[in-house]
Amino acid sequence: MAVQHFFTTLFFSLFIASLSSSFQPLALSSSPFNHPPRFPTTTNHPRSQARPNEAQAPDYRYETRYFTQQLDHFSFLELPTFQQRYLINTEHWVGPQRLGPIFFYCGNEGDIVWFAENTGFLWEIAPQFGAMVVFPEHRYYGESVPYGGREEAYKNATTLSYLTAEQALADFAVLITDLKQNLSATDCPVVLFGGSYGGMLAAWMRLKYPHIAIGALAASAPILQFEDIVPLETFYDIVSSDFKRESSTCFNYIKHSWNEVTSIGQTRNGLVQLSNTFHFCQPLNKTDDLWNWLESAYSYLAMVDYPYSANFMMPLPGHPIKEVCKRIDGQPAGTSLLERIYEGVNVYYNYTGETKCFELDEDPHGLSGWNWQACTEMVMPMSCDPESSMFPPYKFNYSDYEEGCIRNYGVKPRLKWITTEFGGHKIDATLKKFGSNLIFSNGLLDPWSGGSVLQNISESVVALVTEEGAHHLDLRASTQNDPDWLVEQRATEIKLIKGWITEYHQKNKVMFDMF
Amino acid sequence: MAVQHFFTTLFFSLFIASLSSSFQPLALSSSPFNHPPRFPTTTNHPRSQARPNEAQAPDYRYETRYFTQQLDHFSFLELPTFQQRYLINTEHWVGPQRLGPIFFYCGNEGDIVWFAENTGFLWEIAPQFGAMVVFPEHRYYGESVPYGGREEAYKNATTLSYLTAEQALADFAVLITDLKQNLSATDCPVVLFGGSYGGMLAAWMRLKYPHIAIGALAASAPILQFEDIVPLETFYDIVSSDFKRESSTCFNYIKHSWNEVTSIGQTRNGLVQLSNTFHFCQPLNKTDDLWNWLESAYSYLAMVDYPYSANFMMPLPGHPIKEVCKRIDGQPAGTSLLERIYEGVNVYYNYTGETKCFELDEDPHGLSGWNWQACTEMVMPMSCDPESSMFPPYKFNYSDYEEGCIRNYGVKPRLKWITTEFGGHKIDATLKKFGSNLIFSNGLLDPWSGGSVLQNISESVVALVTEEGAHHLDLRASTQNDPDWLVEQRATEIKLIKGWITEYHQKNKVMFDMF
Repeated sequence: MAVQHFFTTLFFSLFIASLSSSFQPLALSSSPFNHPPRFPTTTNHPRSQARPNEAQAPDYRYETRYFTQQLDHFSFLELPTFQQRYLINTEHWVGPQRLGPIFFYCGNEGDIVWFAENTGFLWEIAPQFGAMVVFPEHRYYGESVPYGGREEAYKNATTLSYLTAEQALADFAVLITDLKQNLSATDCPVVLFGGSYGGMLAAWMRLKYPHIAIGALAASAPILQFEDIVPLETFYDIVSSDFKRESSTCFNYIKHSWNEVTSIGQTRNGLVQLSNTFHFCQPLNKTDDLWNWLESAYSYLAMVDYPYSANFMMPLPGHPIKEVCKRIDGQPAGTSLLERIYEGVNVYYNYTGETKCFELDEDPHGLSGWNWQACTEMVMPMSCDPESSMFPPYKFNYSDYEEGCIRNYGVKPRLKWITTEFGGHKIDATLKKFGSNLIFSNGLLDPWSGGSVLQNISESVVALVTEEGAHHLDLRASTQNDPDWLVEQRATEIKLIKGWITEYHQKNKVMFDMF
Repeated sequence: MAVQHFFTTLFFSLFIASLSSSFQPLALSSSPFNHPPRFPTTTNHPRSQARPNEAQAPDYRYETRYFTQQLDHFSFLELPTFQQRYLINTEHWVGPQRLGPIFFYCGNEGDIVWFAENTGFLWEIAPQFGAMVVFPEHRYYGESVPYGGREEAYKNATTLSYLTAEQALADFAVLITDLKQNLSATDCPVVLFGGSYGGMLAAWMRLKYPHIAIGALAASAPILQFEDIVPLETFYDIVSSDFKRESSTCFNYIKHSWNEVTSIGQTRNGLVQLSNTFHFCQPLNKTDDLWNWLESAYSYLAMVDYPYSANFMMPLPGHPIKEVCKRIDGQPAGTSLLERIYEGVNVYYNYTGETKCFELDEDPHGLSGWNWQACTEMVMPMSCDPESSMFPPYKFNYSDYEEGCIRNYGVKPRLKWITTEFGGHKIDATLKKFGSNLIFSNGLLDPWSGGSVLQNISESVVALVTEEGAHHLDLRASTQNDPDWLVEQRATEIKLIKGWITEYHQKNKVMFDMF
């Protein structure tokens, strides 16, 4: 088994990798990676829909159900409905009389079973809350695909056109409303959870559907990564500083490696030489592919730069960036720059050592769900600063981005739509006035943290920031290796959520104390 | 000119009348009017698009502009855009440096010019606020029609499918965002206004787009007239009690007239007899038409039961219901019941006395905008109580309603969608927690008031209720005949809006006092 496939395609599937493979190379002299910025996501490769680590999959019990959804909630066009899959567990639920809470995970861009298995926090805390657990799948992902199946649904821009965040939120709202009614639980409080894009959905849902849910834990949710709300260099600057803090030598090796790749690639047999250095099974077609492969590794490592050995998507040591840099820095004198780089990224792509050679990831389908979303609503502009970043300098260019989307997907991105619909500019003022019962949790090592809310907005709109945290570690199951700050972070989250529910119960005159 | 056409088709165009004429008669033994409940609206008859009272049209100055809108904001289907018309006046605007406010009227179901001319309050107060005035037209009404024109846009359920409230709100959000950007006025506070359905849009917009507008005056906005949030009998009970309070004799005459109509209609030549009694130009085809005609008059009279002679849509005396009842009660002994009724409704249909005979309103197009909205999202169930109402007993029946919509429009109403999307059940809790800077103004004579918010929710979500008020009189231009309570109501509205803007200015550190 080519383990590196596993690495690159699951979970934070590298938007770069998948999008760049479906994109025709754009003639962007200024772009280092020939792609729009990535976003954490499971890929939409058929193989990503299978569960990773089947053998180790946690034993969370649930029933799988399906709910008939409108394809377009906001028009009355005659369209086929589709079946939205959701996982549900009511065994700890104290029921409607006691206003038992409903914990609702806002499914994001991938198979919901995988998210359920990787959101242990929710399963672990449900019993102490007497809560029902619901994991609905996001439309167009996993099994919740319209038009009878993935092939048809992903065929073109017309069939994909209903893959939007607003439609997904409306799915959730309709599902919750129906579920509650069927369970005679209309008065039961709903608490939203979500990580990454799912965290964005949770936060937006709390703002847009305050009548549906009483609060939301939005973990690693970069709701401000749009337009120019945060500096465009933020993402790659954080990745870079994650490396720099481990070793400035390492940072510099990486910073210089890009040109080295290009130089060698331009020589006769250069691509073959690069392919050998990096142990690719097939010769590289172009140096861009290697750039993307490397960039993916670094960015992903920053997202999962967890403090202990984890098998989030694949086995990695604790503090993996430290390990990568140790390898890059620690090679004997005389080792070439690119050989050092290879040794480093090998930690990411091949920590088990099982892979003999690497296949470059190719998306056989061309269109994947997140790529579509990135080319329609989820335009997250990013640049690379020539000084602070270890990546090649790059200035985001809207026209080029748009051009690529039109050429590849036949769709024009709506650059300002997300902030028009959900806000973003001056979010503090909006959240202060309108938000409540919202937790934005972030780990500062996570490059997505720069696009999230990192400061307390009000008494009930709270930022939980961990300096040593990475991408929504708090949502994962607890382990014996959890550092104190993580244990504390989760305890604070539990306390805050209990506060929301207690307040709700008091308002609704529940005469008993649940906690 | 047949004046009664003017009466029945403009402004609160009687949904009953227009919908019942396009509906095939439903076989509902329990339904007195064979139609879904009406909603205040200008009709979509071509003639309603002309301005009433051209000669008396107030002289509000504005520029007419057009803005290119997406037909579907929530999908990326390749669809034609359309031109949204909006009226704009910046002559009193103090500009972006002083954070001059933007007064934005949420256009409702009709020609925006007509709404602009009938919303004098906004024009009158703009100068003291240094405010810009914007009146955007609601999609599918007036000139803001997609597909190149009304005929095409109203052709069938497919072309009509994007006529929804959420799309209209998104139009407003996109327009405001663009306008502000073009005027370098991104920091200028937006205050929303709206009456009737427009008031619902204003309230919903304040809730759904808190980042776009700082407050809303929602006049006579029945946002709770959905599902069973308010008793289904509310609307017709208010109409009935408006009559009863003037005269219980009158109330009883009307209450007994329905069966009389039916009895006579069933006799040989009965329809001709009825047509003569009520001075129809053509013989009635069925008694239902007369029922609808009468019901329209009573309901509309309740909405415009203003305290002084007004020419809202047509000339009516002050306290028109008092006048109607005076006529019904005051006929000489021996006058038949239906002759009394005729004399009464003649106040409504023919106050000027110019009409020699009445044409029954027929919608030549079959499909009208509001009828479509009522058959898709805006399902407002209503019943008539056998005791408290002066109307024939009627119990609302969802299946029949749905059946009619499917048969006539090829569309299935989404009965629970509005409350899922915007809330409604337990609105107090939602508004308390999330709402702010919201005024719900209502006159208790208005039958729509029963479906609105009539109690203060919090310090900044305020209900302004006038006992003697009817349908959003507060939004109209002031007159010399305004009673004290109306003058006070408007003064309170001005004070509250000033408070919102002052607070906003303080937060944004505007160093001068505007008021």
